[in-house]
Amino acid sequence: MNFDLDKPILNKPGILNNVRVVLSHTTHPGNIGAAARAMKTMGLDTLYLVNPSHFPDPQAEAMACGADDVLRNAVVCSSIDEALRGTVFVAAMTARLRDISHEVLTPREAMPLLAHHAAQQPVALLFGTEMAGLTNEEVSKSHLLVRIPANPGYSSLNLAAAVQVICYELSVALQYAGLSLQPIEVEPAKHEELERLFVHLEDALTQIGFFRTGGSNKLMLKLRRLYARARLEQEEVNILRGILSAATEYNVRLKQDYRNELNSKVSE
Amino acid sequence: MNFDLDKPILNKPGILNNVRVVLSHTTHPGNIGAAARAMKTMGLDTLYLVNPSHFPDPQAEAMACGADDVLRNAVVCSSIDEALRGTVFVAAMTARLRDISHEVLTPREAMPLLAHHAAQQPVALLFGTEMAGLTNEEVSKSHLLVRIPANPGYSSLNLAAAVQVICYELSVALQYAGLSLQPIEVEPAKHEELERLFVHLEDALTQIGFFRTGGSNKLMLKLRRLYARARLEQEEVNILRGILSAATEYNVRLKQDYRNELNSKVSE
Repeated sequence: MNFDLDKPILNKPGILNNVRVVLSHTTHPGNIGAAARAMKTMGLDTLYLVNPSHFPDPQAEAMACGADDVLRNAVVCSSIDEALRGTVFVAAMTARLRDISHEVLTPREAMPLLAHHAAQQPVALLFGTEMAGLTNEEVSKSHLLVRIPANPGYSSLNLAAAVQVICYELSVALQYAGLSLQPIEVEPAKHEELERLFVHLEDALTQIGFFRTGGSNKLMLKLRRLYARARLEQEEVNILRGILSAATEYNVRLKQDYRNELNSKVSE
Repeated sequence: MNFDLDKPILNKPGILNNVRVVLSHTTHPGNIGAAARAMKTMGLDTLYLVNPSHFPDPQAEAMACGADDVLRNAVVCSSIDEALRGTVFVAAMTARLRDISHEVLTPREAMPLLAHHAAQQPVALLFGTEMAGLTNEEVSKSHLLVRIPANPGYSSLNLAAAVQVICYELSVALQYAGLSLQPIEVEPAKHEELERLFVHLEDALTQIGFFRTGGSNKLMLKLRRLYARARLEQEEVNILRGILSAATEYNVRLKQDYRNELNSKVSE
């Protein structure tokens, strides 16, 4: 999508339409309804639900309280990949600091960044389940983590309360951002393009015996974290996959050359 | 309480202890519990209730979810004057613009001001009833009104959600005033480590014939740009160089294996 220079840079409804809220494995339907209400008060209406425990549900409707249109249009998905398809930027909410961590920003730092991407392409705000939060897989598919600064002795925000704070920060970021939202001139890689890159990378590294001891998981997570921080562009994904293909082809050529030499020697 | 000039101006727990949340004529006890939880996540624990419809109540306890101490210590009052006694500053939340209005600020504008007063004396955050909001009497006893910017078509935040946003803004105001989250400790890669990585990368790519047409300059610049954006850590440089070494060693092994096979065939 190209940026239309005749229009103001800041098109708030347009930007918010590009922001989907993804709730993963939500246990309590009341939280889904309350989250829908929180979203709508801040002008967001695109809700994706990954394997909710109960949905649709009367409790969700009761808590939505006038935001029932958000619930009615919610997209129920069976996997996180399905929910993130087509997005170019994923900010995932976390309540804790992790060992092998992605970049962790505050909502105030992260939302202008998210708005910047949402000015052109779909983005996602990813919320994990009520008790356990995000899975490692979910973190690994995100570009950055967002942590709401909270009481160290009691940091457990209700899910809908967290949605409210994040959507509020996003909305305020757009109000304050009039001058600072510059168009992005590059094509950021889409979720599915990144996933294909990581499959390609893991295959190639397995082939050359890089994962010698133990499995590939930990190292792949570290590589995902590195490339998440880089916010890869489509062209860069192509370059990296080009390198992987070149390496594989080189090995094939090498084998073929030796095979030919071997055959010619043997047939002499 | 007098201000102690020997201590830093910003004493976050001290300031928060001076902030009471006043909920007036709350209808749903669940909202009282959820508000208590919202307060506690942001480090506030002083709750005043003016004529609540139902309190104490099991629903309030269920929604408090670990913030039951806030509920237990809540002060139930029979009038707004009783609830505001001893305060020097009252910020009242409103969802609408009024005819004869007090000054109306956003939470971001108002909370630093409130914190300023709370550094020395008790202050109040006043929330009206769920449906009707503040009475004119309540407005008249406030120093300013605070309005959370919301969707003009649907501005009705849940009471506890509004408490969450306001307490969050207050907490962030205090953090930005001096206390911030601790940074995650990482070891960024040094200039010379990055340069060695790029030499290693270019050698490995040259070896596998990646730079087919033209030179390597343009592609190397693109790769440098990608990794510059990632702000590589030392460990990540080590991982990337580990991959390059593994690829080179794999090729050497491949060649050696074929060489051995060739030699054994020839010597047959």
